Amino acid sequence: MSAKKYIYLDHAATTPTDSKVVQAMEPYWYQNFGNPSSLYALGQRANKSLELARQDIAKILKSQSEEIIFTGGGTESINLALKGLIHALRPQVPQAHLIVSAIEHHAVLHAAQSLRKEGTEVSIAPVDADGLIIMAQLAAAIKPNTVLISIMLANNEVGTIEPIQKIGVWLAKLNQTRLSKHLPKIYLHTDACQAAGALDLDVQKLHVDLLTLNGSKIYGPKGIGVLYVRRATPLIPIIDGGGKEKNLRSGTENMPAIIGLAAALKIAQKNRLKENARLTKLRDWLIKNILQTIPKTILNGHASYRLPNNVNISILDMEGEALLLYLDDVGIQASTGSACTSATLEPSHVIRALGRPYEAAHGSLRLTLGKSTTLKNLKYLMTKLPGIVKYLRQASPVIVDMVELNQSIKDAPKKIIDL
Amino acid sequence: MSAKKYIYLDHAATTPTDSKVVQAMEPYWYQNFGNPSSLYALGQRANKSLELARQDIAKILKSQSEEIIFTGGGTESINLALKGLIHALRPQVPQAHLIVSAIEHHAVLHAAQSLRKEGTEVSIAPVDADGLIIMAQLAAAIKPNTVLISIMLANNEVGTIEPIQKIGVWLAKLNQTRLSKHLPKIYLHTDACQAAGALDLDVQKLHVDLLTLNGSKIYGPKGIGVLYVRRATPLIPIIDGGGKEKNLRSGTENMPAIIGLAAALKIAQKNRLKENARLTKLRDWLIKNILQTIPKTILNGHASYRLPNNVNISILDMEGEALLLYLDDVGIQASTGSACTSATLEPSHVIRALGRPYEAAHGSLRLTLGKSTTLKNLKYLMTKLPGIVKYLRQASPVIVDMVELNQSIKDAPKKIIDL
Repeated sequence: MSAKKYIYLDHAATTPTDSKVVQAMEPYWYQNFGNPSSLYALGQRANKSLELARQDIAKILKSQSEEIIFTGGGTESINLALKGLIHALRPQVPQAHLIVSAIEHHAVLHAAQSLRKEGTEVSIAPVDADGLIIMAQLAAAIKPNTVLISIMLANNEVGTIEPIQKIGVWLAKLNQTRLSKHLPKIYLHTDACQAAGALDLDVQKLHVDLLTLNGSKIYGPKGIGVLYVRRATPLIPIIDGGGKEKNLRSGTENMPAIIGLAAALKIAQKNRLKENARLTKLRDWLIKNILQTIPKTILNGHASYRLPNNVNISILDMEGEALLLYLDDVGIQASTGSACTSATLEPSHVIRALGRPYEAAHGSLRLTLGKSTTLKNLKYLMTKLPGIVKYLRQASPVIVDMVELNQSIKDAPKKIIDL
Repeated sequence: MSAKKYIYLDHAATTPTDSKVVQAMEPYWYQNFGNPSSLYALGQRANKSLELARQDIAKILKSQSEEIIFTGGGTESINLALKGLIHALRPQVPQAHLIVSAIEHHAVLHAAQSLRKEGTEVSIAPVDADGLIIMAQLAAAIKPNTVLISIMLANNEVGTIEPIQKIGVWLAKLNQTRLSKHLPKIYLHTDACQAAGALDLDVQKLHVDLLTLNGSKIYGPKGIGVLYVRRATPLIPIIDGGGKEKNLRSGTENMPAIIGLAAALKIAQKNRLKENARLTKLRDWLIKNILQTIPKTILNGHASYRLPNNVNISILDMEGEALLLYLDDVGIQASTGSACTSATLEPSHVIRALGRPYEAAHGSLRLTLGKSTTLKNLKYLMTKLPGIVKYLRQASPVIVDMVELNQSIKDAPKKIIDL
C-alpha cells in the first residue's frame, strides 16, 4: 500500500467490511466451526447460530424466519428467484412470461436471457427519463401467461428508487382478477442489493414475494446473499445437493459469512435514517456543485426518488474512462457505472434506457458516497474535477449540442421490448 | 463455550479454518477491499491478487490459470460441471446421457436427478464391496449419447480412492474410437473435495476435463469453490450476470475467500506427503483396534485405496445415531456418514451401495482424523468406545447374524441403475 490518501467514492461497487462485522465472524473460523448438520453439540451450536442469524434478518424484513434462504450472493439469489420460480411453475405454465425493467442489474437481465433461450417469453418494461418504471407500460406488458415481474428496489447506477410498494399493491389487486379468470398468479421479485443499507425492507409493506439481498454493498462479507421467499411461492433449486436451506440451496452453510451478513444488515438498518439524512445532504451538495460548476452536465436518475448516496452525472464532450484514471491519479476512486461492466467499456444499458444517447452514456460519472465520506472529501473532489474535465474536453473529437441532446432525451421512445 | 476438552474426529464434515488462512484473508476485509472489475488502482490491485490466487491453484493442478473458475463452493462447482456441460451440448446432443457412480456426494446425485427431470438420461454405475468403481460395469454403462462421467476422486463417507487416472486414460482412448465413429466425446468430471488435502491433483495425470475443489474440507474458508475446466470443454453458466469468471460464474468476486482458498490449498499440498504418512499410521492403528476390540464390526471402504484420515466401521446390533450422542457426551465428535444427511437419519446411500444391508448402514461410525489428531486422542477414544457400544447393544432389538451378513454382502447385486 502506498501512503497516498484515497477517497473512495465507489460504495455501489463494493464496500469495505465493517470492523464489527469482521469481529462477529471471528469465533466462526476456529472455535465455533462446526457443520450445522452435525448431530454433536458443536454442530448443533452452529445450527443455533445459523437460526439466530436467520431470525435477525427475518425481523428486519418483517418476515417469518423460514422465508429466509441463504445463498452465495446477490447474483445467485436473483438467478434462484427467476429460474427457480419459472422452472417450478413449468408443469402448470409450460410457456411462461417474465417482465423485467430495462434498468435491472445484469444478473436479472442475463438470467432473463438465459430463460428466453429455454423458451420463456421475456418483456423488458421501459423506464422514464428519470429511471422510474412507467406504470402504464408495465401494465401493458402483462400477458395471460405472465408469472413473474422483477424490478429492483433501487438502481445501482443512477440511484433511482422504484415504486415497488405501489407495484406490489397494484399486483395484489390484479392477481385477484386473474385468479377469478383462472390465469396464473403474477409473483413479484425485487433486487434490493443496492437498497439494503438505505431503504425500508419490510416485505409486507412492499408486497413482494421474493427479495434479494447481499453483503457486499452494506459493509458485510462478500459471497453471501439472501433470498426472501414468501410462503407458498413455488421455487425449485438451481444448486442441487445435500438439501440445505429447505432444499432450495445446497452446500455447507457459510457460517462466518452468514453471521457477518446478519451483523452488517442490523448495523445498516439501525443507522439507516440518521445516515440517510447525512448522506442526502452531501449528495445534494455534490450534485448542485457539479451541475453549477461544470457546463454541459446532466444528472442521471431521479432528483428525489434517489438513493441517499448516489450521484450520477453525464459530463458531455468527454470519455468517462479517461476521467476515472485522472481521478484515480489524484486519489479519487469512482466509476462510470456498474463495476460489472466498467471493464468492458460498453456504454451503460441503464443510462441508455433513460433515453440518453451514446455520447451521454460514455461520459457518465458515478460517485457513490459511504460511511467514511465527509464534506471535506467532496470539497477536495471539486478542487480537482472541473480542471480534469476541462483538460479532457480539449482532446474530445465530439461536441454535443445540448439543445439537440435534451430534445433527443425527450423524444426517446419508451417501448416494451420483447426479447 | 464450555471448558470441556473436545476431540474433533469429523474432519470430513468440515474443518476449522487454519490461522494462516485467516491471516491471509485479513488485508482483504478493509484495506484491499476493491472490486476487481473497477478501473482504479484499488480495483486493479484486487484484480492482480485474484489472478495470483488463480495462478497458485493452477500450479497445483498443473493447469493453465484460465482453466480455474471460482465458484461459491463445492456443491455449486459440481452443479456447474454437470448442468453446465449438458446444457452447453444441447444443440449437438439434445438427449444426452450422464453416468455417475453410486457413491457420489448428494450434490452429484441430486444434480443428476434434476437433469433427469429435464430429459437427460442418467445411469448409476455400481461399486464393489470396497467402494471401488467396477470398470467393466462402467464400460457397459456407456451409450452412444454418453457425454459425461462423474466419479469422485475419493469418497467422503468411506474414504475409498477411485482410480480416476485409470478411468481418464481409458476414456481418452475410447474417445478416439468414438470420434472416428462421429459419436460425441465423453468428458470426465471428478469431485475432489474430500481428496484435496491428501491426493495429487494433477489434472494432466488424472486426465480429467472438469475437477471440483472447495475450501471447507482443507482448513480453508467455507463458501468458496473451484471448478477446473479444461480448455475447449463446452460449458454454460448456471448463475448468469455481470459476466465474471470467463462468463461462467457471475457475482462480485469473493476476494477474502479466494485468497483464503489458495492459501489453504497451498498449505495442504505442501504438507501432504508428510501428513498422509502420519495420518495413515493413526488410521490403521484405529481401524485395527476397533476391529479387534469390538466384536461384530466391519470396515467400510477399501483397506489401502483409502484416504489417510478416514475410518468408517459398521458396528452391528446398534443404532449409529445413539452412539454419536454418547460419544459427544464424552467429548468425541464423530459422524455416521455425510453431515449432509446425518440430520435426516436416512441410511447412507454409500454404505448401501457397498452391498451392506440396512442394519449395517444404520450402525456405521465415521471417524475422520485431522491436523490436530494425536495417538493420545485415539487411545482416549478406545477407552470409551467399547463400553458405549456394549451398553447400547444391550438395548438393541436387532441381532445380526454375521455369517448371513457376510453372505449378503457377497451376494449383493452390482448392477447399473438407469434413473
